[in-house]
Amino acid sequence: MQMSPTLISQPVFLNQGEVEQKRQEIKAYFNQTWENYESLFETLVSDDTFYLRPCSLRHPLIFYFGHTATFFTNKLVLAKLLPQRINPTIESMCAIGVDEMSWDDLNDAHYDWPSVAAVRAYRNEVKAAVNALIDQVVFSLPIDWQSPMWPIMMGIEHERIHLETSSVLIRQLPIDQVKPHPLFPICADQQTAAPSNRLLAVPAGEVKIAHQDPAPHYGWDNEYGQHQANVTAFQASEFLVSNAEFLAFVEAGGYHTPEFWNEEGDRWRQFSPVKHPSFWVRKTEGGQQAWYLRCMTEEIPMPWSWPAEVNHLEAAAFCRWKAAQTGQPIRLPSEDEYLRLRDFSQAQQHLAQANINLQQAASSCPVTRCKQGEFYDVIGNVWQWTETPIHPFEGFKVHPLYDDFTTPTFDNKHNIIKGGSWISTGNEINGSSRYAFRRHFFQHAGFRYIASDAPVQKEFSTYETDSAVAQYCEFHFGDEYFGVANFAKAYADLAIGYAQTDADLAKREHLKVLEVGCSVGRASFELAKHFEQVVGLDFSARFINVANQLQTSGQLRYTLPIEGEIMDFKETTLAQLGLSEVASRCEFLQQDATNMKPIFSGYDMIVAMNLIDRLYEPKKFLTDVAARLNSGGLLMLGSPYTWLEEFTQKVHWLGGYKDAHSGENVTTLETLHALLSKDFEPVGAPQELQFVIRETARKYQHTVSQVTLWKKKA
Amino acid sequence: MQMSPTLISQPVFLNQGEVEQKRQEIKAYFNQTWENYESLFETLVSDDTFYLRPCSLRHPLIFYFGHTATFFTNKLVLAKLLPQRINPTIESMCAIGVDEMSWDDLNDAHYDWPSVAAVRAYRNEVKAAVNALIDQVVFSLPIDWQSPMWPIMMGIEHERIHLETSSVLIRQLPIDQVKPHPLFPICADQQTAAPSNRLLAVPAGEVKIAHQDPAPHYGWDNEYGQHQANVTAFQASEFLVSNAEFLAFVEAGGYHTPEFWNEEGDRWRQFSPVKHPSFWVRKTEGGQQAWYLRCMTEEIPMPWSWPAEVNHLEAAAFCRWKAAQTGQPIRLPSEDEYLRLRDFSQAQQHLAQANINLQQAASSCPVTRCKQGEFYDVIGNVWQWTETPIHPFEGFKVHPLYDDFTTPTFDNKHNIIKGGSWISTGNEINGSSRYAFRRHFFQHAGFRYIASDAPVQKEFSTYETDSAVAQYCEFHFGDEYFGVANFAKAYADLAIGYAQTDADLAKREHLKVLEVGCSVGRASFELAKHFEQVVGLDFSARFINVANQLQTSGQLRYTLPIEGEIMDFKETTLAQLGLSEVASRCEFLQQDATNMKPIFSGYDMIVAMNLIDRLYEPKKFLTDVAARLNSGGLLMLGSPYTWLEEFTQKVHWLGGYKDAHSGENVTTLETLHALLSKDFEPVGAPQELQFVIRETARKYQHTVSQVTLWKKKA
Repeated sequence: MQMSPTLISQPVFLNQGEVEQKRQEIKAYFNQTWENYESLFETLVSDDTFYLRPCSLRHPLIFYFGHTATFFTNKLVLAKLLPQRINPTIESMCAIGVDEMSWDDLNDAHYDWPSVAAVRAYRNEVKAAVNALIDQVVFSLPIDWQSPMWPIMMGIEHERIHLETSSVLIRQLPIDQVKPHPLFPICADQQTAAPSNRLLAVPAGEVKIAHQDPAPHYGWDNEYGQHQANVTAFQASEFLVSNAEFLAFVEAGGYHTPEFWNEEGDRWRQFSPVKHPSFWVRKTEGGQQAWYLRCMTEEIPMPWSWPAEVNHLEAAAFCRWKAAQTGQPIRLPSEDEYLRLRDFSQAQQHLAQANINLQQAASSCPVTRCKQGEFYDVIGNVWQWTETPIHPFEGFKVHPLYDDFTTPTFDNKHNIIKGGSWISTGNEINGSSRYAFRRHFFQHAGFRYIASDAPVQKEFSTYETDSAVAQYCEFHFGDEYFGVANFAKAYADLAIGYAQTDADLAKREHLKVLEVGCSVGRASFELAKHFEQVVGLDFSARFINVANQLQTSGQLRYTLPIEGEIMDFKETTLAQLGLSEVASRCEFLQQDATNMKPIFSGYDMIVAMNLIDRLYEPKKFLTDVAARLNSGGLLMLGSPYTWLEEFTQKVHWLGGYKDAHSGENVTTLETLHALLSKDFEPVGAPQELQFVIRETARKYQHTVSQVTLWKKKA
Repeated sequence: MQMSPTLISQPVFLNQGEVEQKRQEIKAYFNQTWENYESLFETLVSDDTFYLRPCSLRHPLIFYFGHTATFFTNKLVLAKLLPQRINPTIESMCAIGVDEMSWDDLNDAHYDWPSVAAVRAYRNEVKAAVNALIDQVVFSLPIDWQSPMWPIMMGIEHERIHLETSSVLIRQLPIDQVKPHPLFPICADQQTAAPSNRLLAVPAGEVKIAHQDPAPHYGWDNEYGQHQANVTAFQASEFLVSNAEFLAFVEAGGYHTPEFWNEEGDRWRQFSPVKHPSFWVRKTEGGQQAWYLRCMTEEIPMPWSWPAEVNHLEAAAFCRWKAAQTGQPIRLPSEDEYLRLRDFSQAQQHLAQANINLQQAASSCPVTRCKQGEFYDVIGNVWQWTETPIHPFEGFKVHPLYDDFTTPTFDNKHNIIKGGSWISTGNEINGSSRYAFRRHFFQHAGFRYIASDAPVQKEFSTYETDSAVAQYCEFHFGDEYFGVANFAKAYADLAIGYAQTDADLAKREHLKVLEVGCSVGRASFELAKHFEQVVGLDFSARFINVANQLQTSGQLRYTLPIEGEIMDFKETTLAQLGLSEVASRCEFLQQDATNMKPIFSGYDMIVAMNLIDRLYEPKKFLTDVAARLNSGGLLMLGSPYTWLEEFTQKVHWLGGYKDAHSGENVTTLETLHALLSKDFEPVGAPQELQFVIRETARKYQHTVSQVTLWKKKA
């Protein structure tokens, strides 16, 4: 059986060609995508099937049938390319709920699904509107993120994703609800014997990505940015793990042996009713147990040479079993290791022979069929799980028309799959794409194992969404507003300037500085440019965690309110800040400024900015601070003196009141002099330092901190 | 008996002379004041008397004996002229509680008063310290508010005030606790017959004050600034009201006739145990009732020709009685009327003959003794109550070393007394001073009545101390911060510009504008420069009251936090803002923007700035607004889109969320277009307008409002 040429698509180049020719090319690509998607639903036996749920936590297929059209109208209205919605009723039902939902979101009483005919009519309306739009839209080449053609490409590629994910849902329907379809023929080679797998060497090498807009093809936000890694040498399995190879794990009791599962996997293992790959079907035939495989529209005797399809948890358990069996460090590859294997095997030069793009079959095929370099199926057949949770590359930005395509999955719970499957098309196989699913999820996905002693990073910095912490992340590491210089850097520079011009400190070596109230740590990092040892303390573990995470990972990501609950996604790195070299001089610890441990002593300088008016007993901090400084040490204080009972009982305010005895106004500056004069000499006049804290894109706190410098008496 | 020349003081000129000569002059003035004050306490029969309370709501005299010294140390420490306190224990007891206190402040258990000897020793220490300071302080002439000599003059003049008020307290002690003193002889002329009083004409005239720092003499904050009034002609009593003249009121049952008293006066009348002037003493002698007068150290048979000494409430009751008797508009003079009388009588040319400055006697004298022009005792003998509550002149500022000298009395409850008494000295009689007491208070004070039909202003704008309202007063009428132009003026100018450039509106006459959410009204006043009719609406009556008060009185005063609870006192006037001419075009009303009455219709323009994100149902306001505009009318909206559940339930937000149906981000700007497009055409691109709201001297909100303009379809 041959695949229909109508299903096979050609990648659309967005950075070359002529406008009118590109218009026709995109139009054809759109219509092919649209029609292929509709054809897929012809595998359902009746309209009633559209209303079955393939999975108890997913919408029925009617939702997905309407959804790809609704996505077009939503994005085109948002982009102001369509003046208004096309069918608000259907669109209100078919927009939200692509992924697993909670049971109460799916209460049928909430949904009065439209008829298949109605959705078909609606799809026709949207199709016509998009065709008209493609005919008329004014655009130029290259087509980049700002191009009006971008949201059209976005809609097309979105539908291509759903072509694949709907095929998985159809595969999860009862077998009597689906029927074979001439456009989607199963691979005929079902009885080839499975090979015995072996590990082949992949030499060390560099992996490098620098993906920028405009790019040759359409891409999702997570593909853009910079990435570089030096991958150590490892061995990779020649073939994807076949059903036969996986059977050994099943028969060895792998699903019943908790030791092969990590904690998350073991929870899933206990929850899961079946103790074998999800698409495997066990039948009793003439008193004999036999394994069958559920394909998209058919159930066939187990094709042992085809790739085993499992979720990440099952694949990882197999690897632990295999490692135990062999004594080798068997595991799944990381994203980088997969990319290194792909480069080394030159798999991308063999795309035309790979089982992808619906060009070979509408199913898997034997793992021995598609050779790419020394390996098989580096690209195609089924997706391959990696150990790497999806995370943004440096320079990541959301596209304003789709800010939640990837960001909700930056949670260390969605692992990257690579290589594509037989039904992966378009962006899915263009070489740049990065898709990720929850580790318990099923796709047309299997795995290849590797042997390597190299550690794998399984935790990436996530977006700090605690609004108070995120606000301070932007305050310390983000943009400047109203022309006011970054405050933390400014006061660190001021402190360094003081230390450099103090005749006494200028002579000392191995200077130690303590920052009390360091918040998320920017100034402490900056102080490390001059001081050999920097200790940053903050009362809030949430803030200290950010500083520690930035120090450890070199990266920081946080969300920032634009308007109401609409968020921007921001990131920074120590490298961008020019702090990579000195960050290791810092240590960040949680500590109460009014009750610090004696160990925090022996500093040449102590910096406490915007601290005293947030302490519950500021006097205690100030009377205690001299003992923590070396003789002749410097104390730098800064505060806007914003006394609030919320933080400091009035009886503990240092200023901003009339004295109960004298009746005179007491300012904080006066009290500072009164409290510190025993141990310190004031140095110079107070300085004024502005700072701006962003609350939303339009609302800011703009404050003036008063900075005073004090030299400890000898 | 002659007054001792040691008691009579000469005014110190601060704007002329040589430094060393001035130093000696001030030193002599200080020591005279100090010693006179101590002499006054020699009228007490024993040290025990120091611990009696002359009034149940006042401290004992020991407090006042120590207080004038403590005041010096407090102010000199505050001014950094003294390095530290002199006796913290005594100073902690003798600083606070000059005025009436509540009973629980006076619980004796709270006070362990020092001995008289201890206070005397303390006074000597302070005296020596101040003398040393006067010897050493570096100053130049003129001595102004910034001069280091100013706090020294402040301490001296403060003690001179207490010389007088302590004499009143001594007068309130039991007669057996006091004794005559050769330095303070009573006036011998006690039996002169009282004159019959009569009204003499005072022609109309202007009263004008423009008192600036530096001035010739020391002054308290309330004396400075600009003031001008045109006083209509009136008649004034030739003499102060004598005891004889007042007796007629007592005997007519004045104290028992509620009709002669206003509400406040009647409350006092019912509370007061005695139904005659406070210093009158009724005795029975040989079966005969006889009146005596309690003077400072003696009780003497009633000197009927001496001025009656009463509080303001009694004086005003007398006037009402007198008016009823005579059918004439008898009342107390206003401050301006007193000043006009003083100018007309040229009383200040007769100071040497007036019963002031302890130059005539240590008591009142007959009202017939001191002629000044056609009148008697325009200055001197006893203070004269006016109808005018103390209020700041335009340009009022507090002195930073004494911000609560006057400001707590700007409450319409403290009435101005003028003219001075026999024991008034220094600043009290320099011609500029303005003292005020609560209307039920007793001083060496009486009154002169006038006949006039002119109305008297008895309510002055007080300082807006509601912190939210005061914050908006500064926002609308105060200073600019961080170089950001006044927001209310800026958007009013923008609105006027729009109205002027709109081809349609430019042709119309009698333009009407509605400002919804006008707050304290600045923009509405500004809009009146172009629009003939301006209606300003706000949901908050507190805000609308400010706008109305400013429109009515032309003045606005408010307090502004500097640091914690330390306040600045600010004022503005329509004249300063250039709005006097147009303010009458405005009308300010309380109204709910989401439920406005139909009457608010027929406008050529509607302005609603920073409103929509504070409404509980903004959609209602926006869908309703078109009907309130004339055809072709303009709608100007501005907002930072700061949506908060505190003000607007999330279900009513216009933007800043992901749509529940489409899952797409919804911005407020998009929703504005969606809601307004039926009735309006957008005009031009949105404008960005910054604003800054001061919270303290160091902390501000800095926000960017987005301004959109909409033209109602014809």
